[in-house]
Amino acid sequence: MTFETIRYEIVDGVARICLNRPEHRNTMNVQMMRDILSALDLADADDAVRVILFHGAGRMFCAGADLSAGGETFDYDSRAGGSSGPVRADATIDYAHPEVRDGAGLMTLRIFNATKPVIAAVHGAAVGVGSSLITAMDARFAADDTKFGFVFTRRGIVPEGASTWFLTRQVGIGTALDWCLSGRVFPAQEALEKGFVRSLHPEDQVLDAAMAYARELATNTAPVSVALTRQMLWRMAGADHPMMAHRLDSRGVYVRGRMADAREGVTSFLEKRAPRFTDRVSTDMPDFYPWWDEPDYF
Amino acid sequence: MTFETIRYEIVDGVARICLNRPEHRNTMNVQMMRDILSALDLADADDAVRVILFHGAGRMFCAGADLSAGGETFDYDSRAGGSSGPVRADATIDYAHPEVRDGAGLMTLRIFNATKPVIAAVHGAAVGVGSSLITAMDARFAADDTKFGFVFTRRGIVPEGASTWFLTRQVGIGTALDWCLSGRVFPAQEALEKGFVRSLHPEDQVLDAAMAYARELATNTAPVSVALTRQMLWRMAGADHPMMAHRLDSRGVYVRGRMADAREGVTSFLEKRAPRFTDRVSTDMPDFYPWWDEPDYF
Amino acid sequence: MTFETIRYEIVDGVARICLNRPEHRNTMNVQMMRDILSALDLADADDAVRVILFHGAGRMFCAGADLSAGGETFDYDSRAGGSSGPVRADATIDYAHPEVRDGAGLMTLRIFNATKPVIAAVHGAAVGVGSSLITAMDARFAADDTKFGFVFTRRGIVPEGASTWFLTRQVGIGTALDWCLSGRVFPAQEALEKGFVRSLHPEDQVLDAAMAYARELATNTAPVSVALTRQMLWRMAGADHPMMAHRLDSRGVYVRGRMADAREGVTSFLEKRAPRFTDRVSTDMPDFYPWWDEPDYF
Repeated sequence: MTFETIRYEIVDGVARICLNRPEHRNTMNVQMMRDILSALDLADADDAVRVILFHGAGRMFCAGADLSAGGETFDYDSRAGGSSGPVRADATIDYAHPEVRDGAGLMTLRIFNATKPVIAAVHGAAVGVGSSLITAMDARFAADDTKFGFVFTRRGIVPEGASTWFLTRQVGIGTALDWCLSGRVFPAQEALEKGFVRSLHPEDQVLDAAMAYARELATNTAPVSVALTRQMLWRMAGADHPMMAHRLDSRGVYVRGRMADAREGVTSFLEKRAPRFTDRVSTDMPDFYPWWDEPDYF
Repeated sequence: MTFETIRYEIVDGVARICLNRPEHRNTMNVQMMRDILSALDLADADDAVRVILFHGAGRMFCAGADLSAGGETFDYDSRAGGSSGPVRADATIDYAHPEVRDGAGLMTLRIFNATKPVIAAVHGAAVGVGSSLITAMDARFAADDTKFGFVFTRRGIVPEGASTWFLTRQVGIGTALDWCLSGRVFPAQEALEKGFVRSLHPEDQVLDAAMAYARELATNTAPVSVALTRQMLWRMAGADHPMMAHRLDSRGVYVRGRMADAREGVTSFLEKRAPRFTDRVSTDMPDFYPWWDEPDYF
Repeated sequence: MTFETIRYEIVDGVARICLNRPEHRNTMNVQMMRDILSALDLADADDAVRVILFHGAGRMFCAGADLSAGGETFDYDSRAGGSSGPVRADATIDYAHPEVRDGAGLMTLRIFNATKPVIAAVHGAAVGVGSSLITAMDARFAADDTKFGFVFTRRGIVPEGASTWFLTRQVGIGTALDWCLSGRVFPAQEALEKGFVRSLHPEDQVLDAAMAYARELATNTAPVSVALTRQMLWRMAGADHPMMAHRLDSRGVYVRGRMADAREGVTSFLEKRAPRFTDRVSTDMPDFYPWWDEPDYF
């Protein structure tokens, strides 16, 4: 599968989505957004994929929005469907209510709904939409010199990518306020100290580090269990009461407990051997999934 | 009061619930779950109890579910009410809708509703339900060598004990995703660094450390104020808007402000002496408590 | 503008609200609460103000409630409108449902709704309402020797100022439970380690440190973008689902993207010069703001 603005490859069960406009510092445009959405759909539907990993070609992960439309970049009507900024969510994007929409949010909401863990290996710069995009991911690895920045107050716009929801849960309200109100660019070390990235690495080793983690997530874990667990965690992070989780746990343990994976999971543990899980995300998700009514855009 | 699978004793106003199947590494079975629920009811109704403390007899706190039913452990229908896993919540458990339920969640929801602080002193291993159970507690102390693990993706099932709700609030979404997606066993040092445990101790001192903290919680604090504060914090952790808290604060300060404890609290402070609080949880909770409609299981 | 219990001044675009009852250790009474509410209204309506900064005159920031009514301090009916504690929210305070209300919550809810960042420089002591008040702020700077304390369980009352909602989001449920259940006074170093304060300083430098941060928040940022971003972060911290944020982002990027600030933000960035933002909070907030129905008190 080839794309115009990204590279897509599967390595050791990891779907690697490489932002690939290095001559433009991987700045985001509408085509790249569409390519990313397609790649996410592809990876999510493929049982051979256990983890989805974003990284970037060239000198940096993503320098932000493509600003080639200059001062009109974020003016949807004026630039008439230009290079970046808000997009018209049309029939080629499977979301309710085609309207002018924040393109970053189409990507982060798609990540939110993924059945596979989604992680990032960033380097150079992850600024603007490059920062927003990774707030919705499950883990982030960074090169030592990476610069981050939720720079929206300095461009006269507002945060995007539902990053206000994601970031408050990733780093707490205090750090989220600091980063987003100031709009300042900050170094990888600060991202590490605040828990936004898991670890720092020399630039030529950050992809390896993220791959090693991806393999760990895939080793000895049941894909259907991982898919359910991921949705339970992210959705319970916003739920009012632990009863919401208890409803899911009770169904989950009951339904999963009689499936092949649970028998294999316990048996292999007792036999002190690696499990061979056979239930598949494409065909074996329990009937209570999805348990939510996805809220519409309006 | 004696139980089959736990020891229950009150020491210095602390109700100590000791998991007591050391020959089975304190693995959880249905009887232990029922004993724990009974002990929580007992402690919560007893004004002589200020804090509830869980610990374990023998080499470890809790090695997880009793897996003596092997591959059928989590298959409720097949094992016909077997050793662990999902349980039928019947008339002896005071929860709505008797159905097949996650037993761990019955315990954590009971802890959630407790009027006393609930803490744990763990050692050896707190794995599976041993990890889930303590997510709902107010503080955790661990022996240096304790192993933790939310191992559910490696057993082919899903997280239980409403731990997805509790854990995201205890350690944030990033760490919760890491621990629960990977299912890996991790050391006490990592639990400390992520804020899951308060402090580490040599194994023979961890119970003392937890007892010292329990006494601190009980010293110079008003039991009714502690009960209200505990519920306010846990329930506001899931609330949408600070107005929900303001409604409680306004009622709380108004009603508590005219009770004996508030007069004693201020007077003793001005007189620079320890307070002697007299309001009791069993009889003096203000009439706005409970302020919530507990959600049903369905 | 002069007040009875506070000083109000604007320095470098920062509205400084100085608690000014040093002879009473800046203890809170009803007049000070009313003065603070008025000052917040004043600062919020003034386009010359970019940041609101609280600090205290004399030996400490705020030693808590004015306890001059002794054991009747928190008994609204008995002290008949006395020095502190619950207040009657009347026509001079613009909140629905005039009733007996927690005065601290009137202040923190006003801060919650502010369009400017609100920060604090504290020293000496920030105890009781002095601690509650700052939970709702965007950043806190402290002198090395500052003592904090959510002492309510030790006074026989309950937390106030919606601090159970704010504090769980600032420091997580574990630390919030520890501080509020125990009611103990704790040192600035602990507040730093738990992320409650940004940094510690010698007492004579803490105001300067907070002013430097305030200037950073005001430098090169668009006031309307800051106002929107602040509300998005705080309100999304309590929202169930990232779609709530996506609805705001989409409207925000669309509406802001065609305003003068967005053109200036991108153009100045491309021209590598400081931006000159011209949109004003008093007149140019987009029509989707406020997007919420503020919950009533009842």
